[in-house]
Amino acid sequence: MDDGTAPARGTGDMPAEEFRRYGHILVERIARYLEDVERSPVLSRAQPGDIRASLPRAAPRTGEDMATILADFDDKILPGITHWNHPGFMAYFAITGSGPGILGELLTAGLNVNGMLWRSSPAVTELEEVTLDWLRQLLGLPEPLFGEITDTASSSTLYALAAAREFAAIDIHQRGVGAQRLRVYCSAEAHSSVDKAVITLGLGSDGLRHVPVDERFRMRADLLESAIADDKAAGIRPLAVVATVGTTGTTSIDPVAKISAICEREGMWLHVDASYAGVAAIVPEKRYVLAGVERAHSLVVNPHKWLFVPIDCSVLYTREPAALKAAFALPLEILYTPEAGVTNLMDYGMSLGRRFRSLKLWFVLRYFGADGIVARLREHMRLAQIVARWAEESDAFELCAPVELSTVVFRYNPPGLAPPEADAANAKLLKLVNESGEVFLSGTRVRGSQVLRLAIGNLRTTERHVLRAMELLEQTAKGL
Amino acid sequence: MDDGTAPARGTGDMPAEEFRRYGHILVERIARYLEDVERSPVLSRAQPGDIRASLPRAAPRTGEDMATILADFDDKILPGITHWNHPGFMAYFAITGSGPGILGELLTAGLNVNGMLWRSSPAVTELEEVTLDWLRQLLGLPEPLFGEITDTASSSTLYALAAAREFAAIDIHQRGVGAQRLRVYCSAEAHSSVDKAVITLGLGSDGLRHVPVDERFRMRADLLESAIADDKAAGIRPLAVVATVGTTGTTSIDPVAKISAICEREGMWLHVDASYAGVAAIVPEKRYVLAGVERAHSLVVNPHKWLFVPIDCSVLYTREPAALKAAFALPLEILYTPEAGVTNLMDYGMSLGRRFRSLKLWFVLRYFGADGIVARLREHMRLAQIVARWAEESDAFELCAPVELSTVVFRYNPPGLAPPEADAANAKLLKLVNESGEVFLSGTRVRGSQVLRLAIGNLRTTERHVLRAMELLEQTAKGL
Repeated sequence: MDDGTAPARGTGDMPAEEFRRYGHILVERIARYLEDVERSPVLSRAQPGDIRASLPRAAPRTGEDMATILADFDDKILPGITHWNHPGFMAYFAITGSGPGILGELLTAGLNVNGMLWRSSPAVTELEEVTLDWLRQLLGLPEPLFGEITDTASSSTLYALAAAREFAAIDIHQRGVGAQRLRVYCSAEAHSSVDKAVITLGLGSDGLRHVPVDERFRMRADLLESAIADDKAAGIRPLAVVATVGTTGTTSIDPVAKISAICEREGMWLHVDASYAGVAAIVPEKRYVLAGVERAHSLVVNPHKWLFVPIDCSVLYTREPAALKAAFALPLEILYTPEAGVTNLMDYGMSLGRRFRSLKLWFVLRYFGADGIVARLREHMRLAQIVARWAEESDAFELCAPVELSTVVFRYNPPGLAPPEADAANAKLLKLVNESGEVFLSGTRVRGSQVLRLAIGNLRTTERHVLRAMELLEQTAKGL
Repeated sequence: MDDGTAPARGTGDMPAEEFRRYGHILVERIARYLEDVERSPVLSRAQPGDIRASLPRAAPRTGEDMATILADFDDKILPGITHWNHPGFMAYFAITGSGPGILGELLTAGLNVNGMLWRSSPAVTELEEVTLDWLRQLLGLPEPLFGEITDTASSSTLYALAAAREFAAIDIHQRGVGAQRLRVYCSAEAHSSVDKAVITLGLGSDGLRHVPVDERFRMRADLLESAIADDKAAGIRPLAVVATVGTTGTTSIDPVAKISAICEREGMWLHVDASYAGVAAIVPEKRYVLAGVERAHSLVVNPHKWLFVPIDCSVLYTREPAALKAAFALPLEILYTPEAGVTNLMDYGMSLGRRFRSLKLWFVLRYFGADGIVARLREHMRLAQIVARWAEESDAFELCAPVELSTVVFRYNPPGLAPPEADAANAKLLKLVNESGEVFLSGTRVRGSQVLRLAIGNLRTTERHVLRAMELLEQTAKGL
């Protein structure tokens, strides 16, 4: 179908034989990369500007050979990669693309369909419905529950709060936010994506109130109630609450059931950000993390975080799809769709284009199966408990937050170290440990103190890697 | 590294040997698919619910074999695919994932890095800078120009208008939209993503004014001026204009230079939506499509539309990155980044997570080279001219809009057909032609009439396919 024999010749695509040749080469490379990734430093040692300086300042005039391009990838790009696939990657929230997920992405790229409308590829819409219903069941949530895949939790939360505006029936859709003062509530530990969403939606940072947390970093429902009462007295309309199941800092779990009762009484939308921790509900003994969520209006869970699906893949669920559709649906002549009664997913969010993201989720759910997923999540939580016990029992380290999931928050705090010195020591410890190349941890602040975070989420991380991380921390701390 | 020998066993990833086996199988499958795609009907013949009904109602308890999963993909998913890779796909805007683009996606999935911060993979940030600077040069735009990759033009336009709010310095960031009345302007032919963005940002649909177009479907700059004057007299603050280079319906090009002069005088932000047509500026004789854009504040161009990059990949450029950052940057303790002076791309948009999307763009720009891209875009425009001349010369068909790019808007309108009958005949013709399985066109409305759209953008589409499309239209029309 293509008469081009060299890259720049002809007007067609890459010839099929060349695609085959380099496709096979890349499969081998990725397999070897995943086997050997532990040999590379987990945190890239590139200095700012290194990669940019290594590359030409302009695109080539004539086409180049794939072999040359791949050699440049090895020499110039790989040194600038921080290896999220490394078993010592324990920063932020550790993730895994997983074999079946990578294969799903390959097929998605090969098909290159856009599921904006049902008819523009019916399988995109329907497989998204099917896989999200499978996931709903695994999470133990009652039907009916409308689901859609977005790129990230930030988009999911933006969409949820846009739906909340419609749900409140104050005609923001036509007239805009206007003079009315609206308020959204989240805890002091909630993710910054809530701030971004509220600001983007035109409510301003004043439109968000951060409710204080208890000693376990959970939103204080009593203080939420009094904040709402104060606002109402001041003429501010309470619009929505964002509860978090698994906060970014300490993976704390807000009291969703209590909060939902408040939202019901006040006629407010309840959105639950369970982007990291939601999938823990697949594990029977952790089902409780989503207790009360059946009464929420919307929920975000990210399969690209702790469900072994390559980024990006965030899932937004809602019990109020009509409000979501009211926020985003517009008539579009060019996309006229003759099929009656079908769902056109472009009507449920900002983005018109839609990748076939459910394919990788389908591959992962089928390949591992429910039991296989439970076994892996359990193993990650078991590894986290090893670190938690170590920090608790150590003289030099202390545990800084309860560990219910796969993330451990702790700090170096030997007897006799004053608070400002402890902060500096922890910052230095973090820097030195990360420079080892064997492990990558992140830091955060808990009650004003600099602490360290160790997050398990990579399928290549085993007990050996966790033990080595603790050893590195102890050895490095001794040298401080 | 993994002791699992069967999918559901162990706690690791898919074993390397299994990844290799199925990776190679998928490369073969995709190569064959791309060679043979013409044998499948372009528009899926699935009925609503078919795919859903063919799949189990719940995820499997135990893991399944990849061979079983791929067999199901063939039997149950493929029939629900509308083949955007088919050479007869001429609906919406036709696209091509292209061989190098697919290979780039495979590598991106294998690496599975998140470039939210510079340090979380320096190569993600820096290759994005480098490739977008290459693209800037190809488009003939002056530096400095900040660029970032987003998922779709809808997000890019949302970000641009969020930046416009900051640029206007009216403290929406903290205090929200409030009582002030703001207005955004676009043409009557602009894409619905502008409406979605304005509504999402809290300005309401009243916050957007659609300016009438001239006989070539271009925004009337004189009417824009008078609309702004009217609004100012009514106490409404003009905020931004969205000009379109290549509208969705007719690919018309707004007079950007004239509009930019108005924006400069009024202190308004000018955003240019060139998501489809912008890349045409890579072709020397089409450079003019971006004339005046050097004075715009922001621009969106989509490599996933007509630059052979798999979806999703949209590029947002801005001359005012400080305004974009002001709209989205927030302090984030957990993501504390010790490197001074680096760009953390999460500060320039809604999404925290960032796929390594520049890799596929880099592969495409290098593999085809500037000359190879020019040859392909030129060929698509040549094919469109064949259709345009046919429609002009035909007794039964008429051309409904000028053809400057790769999209032809026309309709069946033989002598003696009354307007209501013509609309019905065109709708029927579209339906019948699409049912052939050989071609997929879309429809739209031009000056109130039902018309057909034929868009060239797939690298597998050749003159033979275009001739066949015209033949099908003629034959089918005769049978009406």
